[in-house]
Amino acid sequence: MRAMTEAQLEALRKLLGPEKVSQNESELKVHARDEGGQIESPPDCVVYAESRDDVVKVLQFCNDEGIPVVPWGAGTSLEANPVALYGGVCLDLSRMNAIKALRPEDFQVTVEPGVVHYELNKKLSKHGLFFPPDPGAPATIGGIVANNAAGIQAVKYGSVKHYVLQLEVVLANGEVLRCGSRAMRSSSGYDLVHLFVGSEGTLGVFTEITLKLVGLPPEVSAAVASFPALEGATRAVVELVQAGLSPAALELMDPITVRDINAFKGLTLPEAPTLFLEFRGNGPEVAEDVRLARSICEGNGCTRFESVVGREARDRLWEARHHAYYASAAANPGKRAIITDVAVPISKFPEMVEFARGKLEEFGLGGPILGHAGDGNFHVGIFYGDEQERAKAQAVNEAIVLKALELGGTATGEHGVGVGKIKFMPREHGASYGWMRRIKELFDPNGILNPGKVFPLEADRAP
Amino acid sequence: MRAMTEAQLEALRKLLGPEKVSQNESELKVHARDEGGQIESPPDCVVYAESRDDVVKVLQFCNDEGIPVVPWGAGTSLEANPVALYGGVCLDLSRMNAIKALRPEDFQVTVEPGVVHYELNKKLSKHGLFFPPDPGAPATIGGIVANNAAGIQAVKYGSVKHYVLQLEVVLANGEVLRCGSRAMRSSSGYDLVHLFVGSEGTLGVFTEITLKLVGLPPEVSAAVASFPALEGATRAVVELVQAGLSPAALELMDPITVRDINAFKGLTLPEAPTLFLEFRGNGPEVAEDVRLARSICEGNGCTRFESVVGREARDRLWEARHHAYYASAAANPGKRAIITDVAVPISKFPEMVEFARGKLEEFGLGGPILGHAGDGNFHVGIFYGDEQERAKAQAVNEAIVLKALELGGTATGEHGVGVGKIKFMPREHGASYGWMRRIKELFDPNGILNPGKVFPLEADRAP
Repeated sequence: MRAMTEAQLEALRKLLGPEKVSQNESELKVHARDEGGQIESPPDCVVYAESRDDVVKVLQFCNDEGIPVVPWGAGTSLEANPVALYGGVCLDLSRMNAIKALRPEDFQVTVEPGVVHYELNKKLSKHGLFFPPDPGAPATIGGIVANNAAGIQAVKYGSVKHYVLQLEVVLANGEVLRCGSRAMRSSSGYDLVHLFVGSEGTLGVFTEITLKLVGLPPEVSAAVASFPALEGATRAVVELVQAGLSPAALELMDPITVRDINAFKGLTLPEAPTLFLEFRGNGPEVAEDVRLARSICEGNGCTRFESVVGREARDRLWEARHHAYYASAAANPGKRAIITDVAVPISKFPEMVEFARGKLEEFGLGGPILGHAGDGNFHVGIFYGDEQERAKAQAVNEAIVLKALELGGTATGEHGVGVGKIKFMPREHGASYGWMRRIKELFDPNGILNPGKVFPLEADRAP
Repeated sequence: MRAMTEAQLEALRKLLGPEKVSQNESELKVHARDEGGQIESPPDCVVYAESRDDVVKVLQFCNDEGIPVVPWGAGTSLEANPVALYGGVCLDLSRMNAIKALRPEDFQVTVEPGVVHYELNKKLSKHGLFFPPDPGAPATIGGIVANNAAGIQAVKYGSVKHYVLQLEVVLANGEVLRCGSRAMRSSSGYDLVHLFVGSEGTLGVFTEITLKLVGLPPEVSAAVASFPALEGATRAVVELVQAGLSPAALELMDPITVRDINAFKGLTLPEAPTLFLEFRGNGPEVAEDVRLARSICEGNGCTRFESVVGREARDRLWEARHHAYYASAAANPGKRAIITDVAVPISKFPEMVEFARGKLEEFGLGGPILGHAGDGNFHVGIFYGDEQERAKAQAVNEAIVLKALELGGTATGEHGVGVGKIKFMPREHGASYGWMRRIKELFDPNGILNPGKVFPLEADRAP
């Protein structure tokens, strides 16, 4: 499937300079799939944008010619969010990785979309600041904002949308918008910033992002709690949240996840249902939080509560958690996975996890259960080898999503809709989904921006 | 100016029942102006909606007939946000004041729009919970959400938009949308919730609102700090925020404000530039915060730092602050006021306040300066008596807003655009303002919802 003619490719090379437009096979391959790996579909070319002007030129050209444009950050997404389903231009923004303005006095930073979040945090730490949302993977800020990612610290600090103050966005027609302000509060007109956050590259391309930052806490303390049964762990989660503890992170891992992590990282964590906890604040506050957390965990049958004080020990622990996805992939060689991403109100969390576990068992499938428990968000890695297993995996996924919606939750807590969650959108949003599509058509009437994501491509629009 | 014929009024009475449709002169008068009082313009009738169905019926009818509909909560706004500039129906939602579902286990509550925020908080306190945004006035939740209000506790807890999980909205054509979910995080499609929050009744009418709640902190401690000069107070604000102190409230009052409050509430606060501070948390944390705050204030010349421990003493203090608006009005009998509402990045706060003070002086106008300093948001009450003073007040207001925009801020931190801030929208938002209008036209093609707010009414649309 090709969306672009030779003449169009030649025109694009002329427009941008040939060094920014690549048809190199290996680069097309790298940009043909994201970390999730569900779908493989190469673009016709990769354009490496180096400035806002490049982005404007690409969009104007492609809008006139009806060529799909799919923005690309680091490809660490899991729902094929930046995969060029219908060919066209993969607009790689990784070269736009400048920190444009760091304003420690305002707790703010302005970056280009290609800045990688942990590199940003490395630079911010010198100023005693950090950007809390941390999806685990080495994602770019542009991708994180486009997906409204959340990650492990959102239970205390909230997801990305709480941190975006200002956006510079290039629309499908090449128009450049600036939305939001640098004030900490504003009631000035419609909130376009939050319309673009989480729009997965279907409404516009970010070229500049101003983020709110947070001061690094003086103390960080982590803890690992092991439980004899998953139910004790999930009940403890509910009580920890209800006690108003506000941990910086509250992560659940089932025994399979712990086993995979142990094997991948050479650790010796007990292979039991486990909570990872992290507390941040000043010294006495953190000590008191850990004490209360231990008491709640023990009240729910926790058999081992290991408190890990200090940033270094904490970092080792979280590195293991960060690599859970890769650990599970390594434990299932040759297999692919559907990764669920539902989130439910916290009181429904134990019921939801138990339902997921039961469904896996019912269909005879294995797979890790882990997640950002403090936000009622968790993932099941449903691994499959052949087509038969894939069909079962899809059935389990579907059952889990429908259950989450029934419990007042969402199909996707942080991975975005991409391709895989489209089928659940009418059920989750009802009439609102139609209005989302009308907004899409308003901003991108030719349908060039990331076609086939968030909404199915209409038959008459397919290239 | 009348938008409705007798026949239309009669049809509306038939549709809803005559007891819900009022043309009583005194009720029209009550609904002709808001607390700000800048503009007085009565609707043709007031409709008291008692259910979602009533709202749907009113909107369907008015959309078909081209009659303006202006949603009304408690009328405590300051920018004529709910004033029926072009007549039509004032849709009073105060009777829709049921708490539909309280879910303490999820820190969530679902309310109808007419619930008054402090009555909600009274009920929530029995469950150890509260809804932080507090605009001071006895506003309804519907109005608070429609304006994205913030108030005195937003510096720690954030403005309303951080608390709205789910909305039921009736669109201009009577269609009922449900947006959002009860999950604490979601990346599922476009964020319509935040498009409606702060849309000031121009995109739809809320009939149900699900809010996130916060646990009541165990300790509350307040402090009053007096300074010899405004500049010391504003510099202290910047340092308090930069120290990462995160007070629950951080309010600035100039000597005029303190004088007005003293007179209004029979208090004896020193009539000097003053900061009100509030800290919430556990005991040792709060004590440490107060100690550090005192040290920062004293480092900026604070001559008197009075710490007020406990909820009752704190409540007296905040009651005074809450009544600052009424106190200043009482001190300026027979006058009206333009109330500025700019917000700037925190590092620009001293420069901004000093600029405002200088402008008042330059034009020979008096008026209190007070505000939610911790968020870089403050108000100047520019009182005027005659037309000449009014023109001067407008000039001062305009200078202040333009300065705030120049400093990276916003024309309105929490009062909304209403009528008075419309003229600054093109300057603040540039091309984005055009896209806001396109969204307005998408959702309300006949322009019946709160016409003349956020956007000027186009000449060819005026009734």
